[in-house]
Amino acid sequence: MIMNLANEVLSGNRLALARLLTKIENGTADGRAALDELFPHTGRAHLIGVTGAPGTGKSSLVNQLAKGYRNPPDGAEPVKVAIVAVDPSSPFTGGAILGDRIRMRELSGDAGVFIRSMASRGALGGIATTTAGLVQVFDAAGFEIILIETVGAGQAEVDIACLAHTTLVVEAPGMGDDIQAIKAGILEIADVLVINKADRPGVENTEQALRNMLQLAHPTPRIFRHHGIKIQNQPPVPPGTDPELWIPPIQRTIAMDGVGVGDLLKHIAAHRAYLLRTGEWLQRDRLRLETEMDGLIQSKLYARWRLSVPEWFYAEYVQKVLSRQVSPHQAADAMLNGENSS
Amino acid sequence: MIMNLANEVLSGNRLALARLLTKIENGTADGRAALDELFPHTGRAHLIGVTGAPGTGKSSLVNQLAKGYRNPPDGAEPVKVAIVAVDPSSPFTGGAILGDRIRMRELSGDAGVFIRSMASRGALGGIATTTAGLVQVFDAAGFEIILIETVGAGQAEVDIACLAHTTLVVEAPGMGDDIQAIKAGILEIADVLVINKADRPGVENTEQALRNMLQLAHPTPRIFRHHGIKIQNQPPVPPGTDPELWIPPIQRTIAMDGVGVGDLLKHIAAHRAYLLRTGEWLQRDRLRLETEMDGLIQSKLYARWRLSVPEWFYAEYVQKVLSRQVSPHQAADAMLNGENSS
Repeated sequence: MIMNLANEVLSGNRLALARLLTKIENGTADGRAALDELFPHTGRAHLIGVTGAPGTGKSSLVNQLAKGYRNPPDGAEPVKVAIVAVDPSSPFTGGAILGDRIRMRELSGDAGVFIRSMASRGALGGIATTTAGLVQVFDAAGFEIILIETVGAGQAEVDIACLAHTTLVVEAPGMGDDIQAIKAGILEIADVLVINKADRPGVENTEQALRNMLQLAHPTPRIFRHHGIKIQNQPPVPPGTDPELWIPPIQRTIAMDGVGVGDLLKHIAAHRAYLLRTGEWLQRDRLRLETEMDGLIQSKLYARWRLSVPEWFYAEYVQKVLSRQVSPHQAADAMLNGENSS
Repeated sequence: MIMNLANEVLSGNRLALARLLTKIENGTADGRAALDELFPHTGRAHLIGVTGAPGTGKSSLVNQLAKGYRNPPDGAEPVKVAIVAVDPSSPFTGGAILGDRIRMRELSGDAGVFIRSMASRGALGGIATTTAGLVQVFDAAGFEIILIETVGAGQAEVDIACLAHTTLVVEAPGMGDDIQAIKAGILEIADVLVINKADRPGVENTEQALRNMLQLAHPTPRIFRHHGIKIQNQPPVPPGTDPELWIPPIQRTIAMDGVGVGDLLKHIAAHRAYLLRTGEWLQRDRLRLETEMDGLIQSKLYARWRLSVPEWFYAEYVQKVLSRQVSPHQAADAMLNGENSS
């Protein structure tokens, strides 16, 4: 009576789902195999990234969004919601587990919601790769909305934003001086700007600052902003055509009281419609999957190469770099050309 | 009378230095070549990472540290200081330039200080790689102290901390709830903990919280904490030996007034002495350079491979992934095995 893990996940077994998520986090071979089996069932979910600096109230907002999807207005059908919280907490503090518990209390008893916190240090293959795996599992398991929550404004947030169809950047009034800089960097990945804690003093200033930044920005098709080798894959806009552009709306919310959350849900739905209408949904899909595939090819090529060269050969070059005889760049070239170090 | 750029940098030409830093940021071939030439002159600088959440006053603290190195007590010789500020600001806001100007005013006219802000979006090869290049240039140019300042608590900060010999994590009393979680994640990379703005209320609580976290942590040799393929390179501690362990000290500062900065400088010097005494200085050096070399090998292998396969072959697999026939993982394997997709 042993059932296949992928099939159990497809049939809605929550325990199997949790087990597979752990396998993905741990990077096990059977987790990987199950993911391959599940992959044909992916591609339906709306992936929504939620990021912002500490203290902006992202988690409360994510919970409110989940509640909104579970209790839609006008008697619409509720959709299944998964929350992936990428939490930079350490294994020894149990921060992720604590966060889960607090949230479970709020959304508990609802089988249509699944919450998973991921301690970033547990992600052996990199945060973005592991997050991508978790998201694919939820997608295959029929979760129509996947909220991916990240703290901060680093490269990891940008990478995770590239996973999402729609990225929400959350601000709050009256944060420190550095916030201005962070806003600027993260603004480029924002599809919707949220000013949470909008009952705080300074909300007008925050909104004005965001509006000024949006005006300074010259919107270009988003795909061009991504770093790396995939940039050229985007066909240039033919001259004479005027592609529809998405200007990120600014929405004030008070997540604690649910104020503004309904309007925020409408902005998210509008962005989804925009992506589908313009074909950008498919482009983001392609970018995400190609990036994942290329990353896998890189690691596999490296692993093969390492097995193909003798250990002493590699060690000799490391020694030459350590003694500053050759640079890492020169050593890499020489090794790939099969040059003997002696 | 055309002088070689690397030689000009070695001879102390600041304009040449600035020009080379720009070339490194832009990833140009001649910048790369100059870096190869300069590499034999590296390995002398003490690399000090300074990271922490927005609003903790990192920049002021970094300026104070620079001033401390330039005006050492007891008539000691001042050392040359470079500051690399990894700034997540966007190209269109000019945040990095503004930050430079404010700092230039404070430390201006001192030829022994060089400040470079790097907009993270300008880093084509990834923030950590570009930062590593800038740091190597400063190292070769004779800057004995290199302060690497980053905002946030993401993977980029962890990667940059891996560059540094000594990592300072800066906290401040009375920050938001999320800070707790961030602290935990970043605590593992801290060699010295700084509570800046120590005149603020709540400083006792902040210090107590940090002490509790330090006690919870079971200190293990730091190199084991790094992700990726290099973890095994660290020889296990032979049974019976009791390696000297570094317990991160906690130092209160008020950067605005310079309070506590002298003691902080002493902690940094003590950590440097610890690294040299235990051989960990060399281990961190090796880890950093091997990681850099392996990253280069990966990209070069991928670039070669892409040139070796016909474009239609790659495109067909992308299409199969997009239509969910095969997973990115399966496609990568099949392509590397040269399987025809049709």
